[in-house]
Amino acid sequence: MTRTIGVDIGGTRTRVAAVATGRILARRAFQTRGIEDVETAIRGILVEAGWGKPTAIGVGAPAPLDMRSGRILSCPNLPGWNNVEVREDLQRAFGCPVYLANDATCAAIGELTLGVRSRDFVYITWSTGIGGGIVAGGQVVWGATGGAGEIGHIVLQPGGPPCACGKNGCLEVLAGGASLARLGSEALGTPLSARDLVVHAQRENPVAGKLVLDACRAFGQGIAIVWEILEPGLIVLGGGLTGSWAFLGPQVLAAAQGMVRERPRVELTQLGDDAGLLGAASLSAYTPAEWHSP
Amino acid sequence: MTRTIGVDIGGTRTRVAAVATGRILARRAFQTRGIEDVETAIRGILVEAGWGKPTAIGVGAPAPLDMRSGRILSCPNLPGWNNVEVREDLQRAFGCPVYLANDATCAAIGELTLGVRSRDFVYITWSTGIGGGIVAGGQVVWGATGGAGEIGHIVLQPGGPPCACGKNGCLEVLAGGASLARLGSEALGTPLSARDLVVHAQRENPVAGKLVLDACRAFGQGIAIVWEILEPGLIVLGGGLTGSWAFLGPQVLAAAQGMVRERPRVELTQLGDDAGLLGAASLSAYTPAEWHSP
Repeated sequence: MTRTIGVDIGGTRTRVAAVATGRILARRAFQTRGIEDVETAIRGILVEAGWGKPTAIGVGAPAPLDMRSGRILSCPNLPGWNNVEVREDLQRAFGCPVYLANDATCAAIGELTLGVRSRDFVYITWSTGIGGGIVAGGQVVWGATGGAGEIGHIVLQPGGPPCACGKNGCLEVLAGGASLARLGSEALGTPLSARDLVVHAQRENPVAGKLVLDACRAFGQGIAIVWEILEPGLIVLGGGLTGSWAFLGPQVLAAAQGMVRERPRVELTQLGDDAGLLGAASLSAYTPAEWHSP
Repeated sequence: MTRTIGVDIGGTRTRVAAVATGRILARRAFQTRGIEDVETAIRGILVEAGWGKPTAIGVGAPAPLDMRSGRILSCPNLPGWNNVEVREDLQRAFGCPVYLANDATCAAIGELTLGVRSRDFVYITWSTGIGGGIVAGGQVVWGATGGAGEIGHIVLQPGGPPCACGKNGCLEVLAGGASLARLGSEALGTPLSARDLVVHAQRENPVAGKLVLDACRAFGQGIAIVWEILEPGLIVLGGGLTGSWAFLGPQVLAAAQGMVRERPRVELTQLGDDAGLLGAASLSAYTPAEWHSP
């Protein structure tokens, strides 16, 4: 029996779980602060699960990272995680191999092993940011250095609004939750979350409705582009904004439909928030051998 | 020794070769007309190569096709190839397994086996049309039904000019050779090929220069999108328009650079026109087992 620890570092919450053959035996969730809190949580769940030492630890993070060295790079938006040697620190603390990957790729691995279990699909998270993880022919598409799946940073509007990544007109700045919250707050003159803005749109506020429609159109265009390039057969969606899919979905799919050769098949994740956590726990089995923890 | 026949059906020319362990032993090229001419050419090169029967035949075509049944679908632009049962016909004629795939994916296989030999790259053809073939982690990315790589049909301008595929604002209608020829002929009031238009642009005709620049910007945006989604590490370019890369390349790369996290590495194919032909000859080794010729 493999006894692995999955860690899902989110923009606001971090979650840690002890996972044995796909089942979560113990879990913790807490505000994202830094690696010390993750170490404390792992120690706690190791005791709770009755494990001495895990087989492996897998960590998913939304940050720019170097999979090969297991390091999170410059990451101003993730409190306490700027330039952290995740692999080195956790290996020293727990004496087992440690793997680090993009959180959306982790979610795709979670779907591959315990969710849709399809051989070809793309997982897309529509949340504060927008990210993706790709599975093709049953294999994870990592990219040359582990950087594949940056669907949020495809440029749809050259010279468009500035994105946090430094470019302009990325899908994420056109349709991501952080952007929607900012645009909504400015347009309606009161601090709003993306979900608040969606609620205003549902109540037929025309300003909110237009902002949400524009975001849905950009998101639909992104889905169509992914479909043409990868023909994945299935797109699995997760992330906070998919909680409003009954309202947003028809707008997204109407936009996508005219931009793709066939009607893309889109499903919401059935793993709730756990796709990334479960996938992180399986990272040791999916990380290419040449990037393995020494 | 494998003795395979590669067939590359192009919009104007069809090429057929006898290939043994990566070497072309005999070849024919002729105007694209239909499957009878291909059969005749195969018979000719079998005699020339001194082979009784080939091990396998692989066919690459720029058309919408069904890899699993080995059939070219509706294809008004490919003279003589509308709804042709390629696998059935050639299997009956030559008594060996027959494989059919998208021509750009064939070119990617040619690069994988005999060209760049990289584990991660995308091959893009910039010619009359625009197509792509994807290799990730040393594996061909086929898509759920063999339709991956349709880079020419990502929509960059929703509601933009109509593309031959029936959608609007696809990369191919913004930057493909057929489109450039049409736009150039209209703008300059005389029938021009895409290469003619490029020559006018090189001679500083401002109208031609603007049309070419717009196409380069769209092509650069497409390269950037592919890079963000796949992080291939390398993009290999082929196709007629890359013959003018010294003039077009700087415009393409200048556009791409602002739309991608890192400077994309772009190289021209070293296989000349043979990437697709050589890849078609290797199709039997790369086609997923479940789509194999019965």
